[in-house]
Amino acid sequence: MADPLNIALAGLGTVGAGVVRLLADNGDLIARRAGRAIRVVAVSARDRTRDRGIDLSGIDWVDDTAALAEHSGVDAVVEVVGGSDGPALALARRTIAAGRSLVTANKAMIAHHGMDLAAAAEAGGVALKYEAAVAGGIPVIKGLREGAAANRFAHVYGILNGTCNHILSVMEKEGRSFADVLAEAQALGYAEADPAFDIDGVDAAHKLAILASLAFGTAIDFDAIETVGVRHVVEADIAEAAALGFRIRLVGVAGMDAGGLFQRVHPHLVPHDHPLAHVSGSLNAVVAQGDAVGRLFFEGRGAGAGPTASAVVADLIDLARGASGPVLSMPAETLERAAVADAGAREGRAYLRFAVADRPGVLAEIAAAMRDAGVSIESLIQRGTMPDGSVVVAMVTHRGREACVTDALGRLRGSASLTGQPMWMPILED
Amino acid sequence: MADPLNIALAGLGTVGAGVVRLLADNGDLIARRAGRAIRVVAVSARDRTRDRGIDLSGIDWVDDTAALAEHSGVDAVVEVVGGSDGPALALARRTIAAGRSLVTANKAMIAHHGMDLAAAAEAGGVALKYEAAVAGGIPVIKGLREGAAANRFAHVYGILNGTCNHILSVMEKEGRSFADVLAEAQALGYAEADPAFDIDGVDAAHKLAILASLAFGTAIDFDAIETVGVRHVVEADIAEAAALGFRIRLVGVAGMDAGGLFQRVHPHLVPHDHPLAHVSGSLNAVVAQGDAVGRLFFEGRGAGAGPTASAVVADLIDLARGASGPVLSMPAETLERAAVADAGAREGRAYLRFAVADRPGVLAEIAAAMRDAGVSIESLIQRGTMPDGSVVVAMVTHRGREACVTDALGRLRGSASLTGQPMWMPILED
Repeated sequence: MADPLNIALAGLGTVGAGVVRLLADNGDLIARRAGRAIRVVAVSARDRTRDRGIDLSGIDWVDDTAALAEHSGVDAVVEVVGGSDGPALALARRTIAAGRSLVTANKAMIAHHGMDLAAAAEAGGVALKYEAAVAGGIPVIKGLREGAAANRFAHVYGILNGTCNHILSVMEKEGRSFADVLAEAQALGYAEADPAFDIDGVDAAHKLAILASLAFGTAIDFDAIETVGVRHVVEADIAEAAALGFRIRLVGVAGMDAGGLFQRVHPHLVPHDHPLAHVSGSLNAVVAQGDAVGRLFFEGRGAGAGPTASAVVADLIDLARGASGPVLSMPAETLERAAVADAGAREGRAYLRFAVADRPGVLAEIAAAMRDAGVSIESLIQRGTMPDGSVVVAMVTHRGREACVTDALGRLRGSASLTGQPMWMPILED
Repeated sequence: MADPLNIALAGLGTVGAGVVRLLADNGDLIARRAGRAIRVVAVSARDRTRDRGIDLSGIDWVDDTAALAEHSGVDAVVEVVGGSDGPALALARRTIAAGRSLVTANKAMIAHHGMDLAAAAEAGGVALKYEAAVAGGIPVIKGLREGAAANRFAHVYGILNGTCNHILSVMEKEGRSFADVLAEAQALGYAEADPAFDIDGVDAAHKLAILASLAFGTAIDFDAIETVGVRHVVEADIAEAAALGFRIRLVGVAGMDAGGLFQRVHPHLVPHDHPLAHVSGSLNAVVAQGDAVGRLFFEGRGAGAGPTASAVVADLIDLARGASGPVLSMPAETLERAAVADAGAREGRAYLRFAVADRPGVLAEIAAAMRDAGVSIESLIQRGTMPDGSVVVAMVTHRGREACVTDALGRLRGSASLTGQPMWMPILED
């Protein structure tokens, strides 16, 4: 068997400790598959004294995280510190500059700095791998970059944040409010104390930016993503959607459409017969629609020590076997930033929900606004009430331009009939 | 850009023509992703004159298929002739002997001769790739061999034959008989004129043998697979299973269990809340349960020109980028044939269906046989009738050893109460 692949590991939180544990537990099996042992020779983390339940004997402890990049005898650095900038980015840059390969689980860093890092890695002839950055243990980076690489993709989309999916699933199953379920998830450790990154869709957008680049051969463009999270989904939305034949999921969607690259993270109504409707709890799932392969669907655990470590170590096995090819789908220097799609020009169906005062004429006012904006209504129900006692009017539109719906909502802005902000959600197609 | 990857293509049926078309349609994109053009320089097929709707100008036509192996300037040979032996195998052996890489969609050849071919390829330092051999366009070979390579697998299973899944789906949806749906599928070209390979489970078993080797690091052992197809599933089974909360799917299952490697292709009852229950029509799906990653689920098109070509060309892109690593999960010479599991010692739940005469005492006789064999009944329904008018008794057992169920069925053999062969199907777990 060849010489071991020696790695330095930055970060010993849940993921880092998971990597150490997985390499220990399945070390022999991994070595047989990789053709050589994969050995942690140096680590760096904040607190040296903390008991993580893993054996670090024989492993060098390095206080200066960035110094791992040049640590003696290291073939590759694994970065699981997190954060788009700061120590993670410093380490990534120094590792590549030192002519060593980098494996990272850091979606924020790849979403923000992936183009620069990829170009540097390719110029330096080292690998940069990030399977764990999207959808945790699901090998979807590999699926797009390699497994479906012969295809022109129509779109790629998925459930990319397990916390949001957990919250929506519990709301749906137990009829509880967003705030209530979030508070419980925080108490149980399923959601962060500061949950904004997850529930506002930023984490999903990081992942979507990476998937879009892989699928469409465009430069990663996180800033162009329209990002709306799940804060404003109320129990009534879930109930009305169910009555109309849908489930609500936070879906990140990307496609070449309406004059450019369309990228959006938003709560969507997903038809009951669509595979994403059956993705429950903290699972993640990704759909890619290729011109040759048709619809590919991947599902699995998107977070947690085991799944994330599984993806990190898969990258290491690739390195040990002799990974090759570009960092993204094509050499980074050939990827250009796409024009941004005009979302208003996209065609689709939409869900609209209004909280209205319970008095005559309200429905006529809404219907008139729809008519005047050219929005055609496919189905409408008025049956629920909001927590404040106002009446819920929910509808699904026929296919039409998003701009028309925006226009209709504009016409209703400030109307005394509405007791709160209307909710708009796109309906997921194919 | 580097020199093109020059390929010779054996077989211009649905798949071969699909490969030519895909390389033509997406050629520029594929070249950008692969880092070099992928170019068909020679082809061989039975009938030179047939119009396949593809442009073969500038491509050498070779009458002797096996001679493609040494055709001048060829880097890799693509074999889509089919058949476990004969011309396909001869070409495969000659290609590897000639020091060239082989890409194949041939599940039968890999199931029967994969170990020898892999050993020869590894000894010769050439690649042998076969993504298209299992589950068509779904990158599940890559998923197991690379994406989830850090995991110890508990089991791997899936819906591996689209024809059977189509037939079962239509029977379920339209309440029609097996023979009726099969005849229609044949007329529409969804099923072969000689459908035995599909409906008797042989095709699924070929694929399962490959998946099991990848997951468990054992030698491919097709002969050890217990293979039962879908011929004996009747409408009443589907209806009773539905009443009990299940759908019927032909599932290939492999795991290390009961003293060795367990491999079985058999109709299973799949709980409604299991992802395989939602795999309809001709789709394929694979589940792998890893110790770190948990349950991974892959779904997509398992056959047809586009999906199969997608997988073949993905292999070619891997070659063009510089593929590496063993043919299977580990070097072929290190893989040993596993002991065969004692299926009778496995624990699980089962579905049993009896067609019985409509007279007193029949149920007591069945119940007594179950009791005497130590089989505990979880639920039982007697409501349907068979086409011949006999009464259907269907039941689901509690978890127990398969051997007990076999014993119970043995006790009832030859009973005058039974008007036909009992049906036994395992219930799919996790």
